[in-house]
Amino acid sequence: MMSHEQIQQCMDSCLQCMVACSICYDACLKENDIGMMRDCIRLDRECADVCELAAKSISQGSPFVREICALCANVCEACGKECGKHMHEHCKRCAEACFACAKACRNMAA
Amino acid sequence: MMSHEQIQQCMDSCLQCMVACSICYDACLKENDIGMMRDCIRLDRECADVCELAAKSISQGSPFVREICALCANVCEACGKECGKHMHEHCKRCAEACFACAKACRNMAA
Amino acid sequence: MMSHEQIQQCMDSCLQCMVACSICYDACLKENDIGMMRDCIRLDRECADVCELAAKSISQGSPFVREICALCANVCEACGKECGKHMHEHCKRCAEACFACAKACRNMAA
Amino acid sequence: MMSHEQIQQCMDSCLQCMVACSICYDACLKENDIGMMRDCIRLDRECADVCELAAKSISQGSPFVREICALCANVCEACGKECGKHMHEHCKRCAEACFACAKACRNMAA
Repeated sequence: MMSHEQIQQCMDSCLQCMVACSICYDACLKENDIGMMRDCIRLDRECADVCELAAKSISQGSPFVREICALCANVCEACGKECGKHMHEHCKRCAEACFACAKACRNMAA
Repeated sequence: MMSHEQIQQCMDSCLQCMVACSICYDACLKENDIGMMRDCIRLDRECADVCELAAKSISQGSPFVREICALCANVCEACGKECGKHMHEHCKRCAEACFACAKACRNMAA
Repeated sequence: MMSHEQIQQCMDSCLQCMVACSICYDACLKENDIGMMRDCIRLDRECADVCELAAKSISQGSPFVREICALCANVCEACGKECGKHMHEHCKRCAEACFACAKACRNMAA
Repeated sequence: MMSHEQIQQCMDSCLQCMVACSICYDACLKENDIGMMRDCIRLDRECADVCELAAKSISQGSPFVREICALCANVCEACGKECGKHMHEHCKRCAEACFACAKACRNMAA
């Protein structure tokens, strides 16, 4: 059973990850080495969308919140791993936000 | 392995279900017996949002398409069961669209 | 020209409004007087979705950020006015978040 | 005043444009000349998201359907113009879907 603080913290992690992914997506589209950033762009966008759904499902008391958070944890991990391969500052920040969100969503889904 | 037709058909089912759920959501909010329609309103809205994500994931070649379609199948089944309890024409149509989408998404996820 | 702080503050207002609307939507669906809450349910859901789009457009540097924020301000004002008619605590909090977001988005759109 | 057929046709145009943009987005991310496709990727993703919102607003009888369709028409036109600059088959198809959707949304917004 999650406490109110844990639920709130998971939602905040989703929102922070959504923002970090959107910022990283925007920055990747402007990088000189965009040919290296294909997977990062794709996963950033996907991760932002799934974090959005997860934040919405938590805040509106969805009956599918566990399943959605389990999906979100998987997408965040994939995005975090991809971002972790790159040296750009926005990728590092995004990777951190992804792993924090993955952890919070994993607890939520358990 | 899905054929191109099966993939296309799954995406169409998601879009049709999204529309049917949105129409049912709108109609439920106008029903006299709105007190009976609480779960229907909630599930319609959730199902439309998840169908949207599923259609997007299919059309953009998401690496998470199977997981998202598995989630979508579960939400569609829950929404279809709830809609199936009500006599309103929009609920019946929505239930049909939900069960068709659940089936297509279940195949996609397999 | 917006400063970095103003942009950040607008995005935060959108995220806070999205959450407040989702909480209000969930709570309205559980109220005894749900027949009185029809417009509130509808506008909460719509406002949450448009705030989501606005937050995403700001964070990903969308070329349509002004237009999207102008739309968001209008939806927030309508939702805030509707929530302001009701005595429920969640409606009052939602109205506050809506008016704060409307103001921030209006500045962003200018 | 729009007829039922015109409303249905506008919603279908939004869904078709959403799919065409998502397919183009996916294909652009795989192109050799990805450095040329930056704006196309960005606008495809944005256009798909706004078409999604427009289709949802039409199907759920949103009080903001005109404003949302006006925004959608602008985004579709920008995306169609960008896609029209490229020789890729997916860009040509996307441009067609964008201009058709822009026209339908312009009528809806009028």
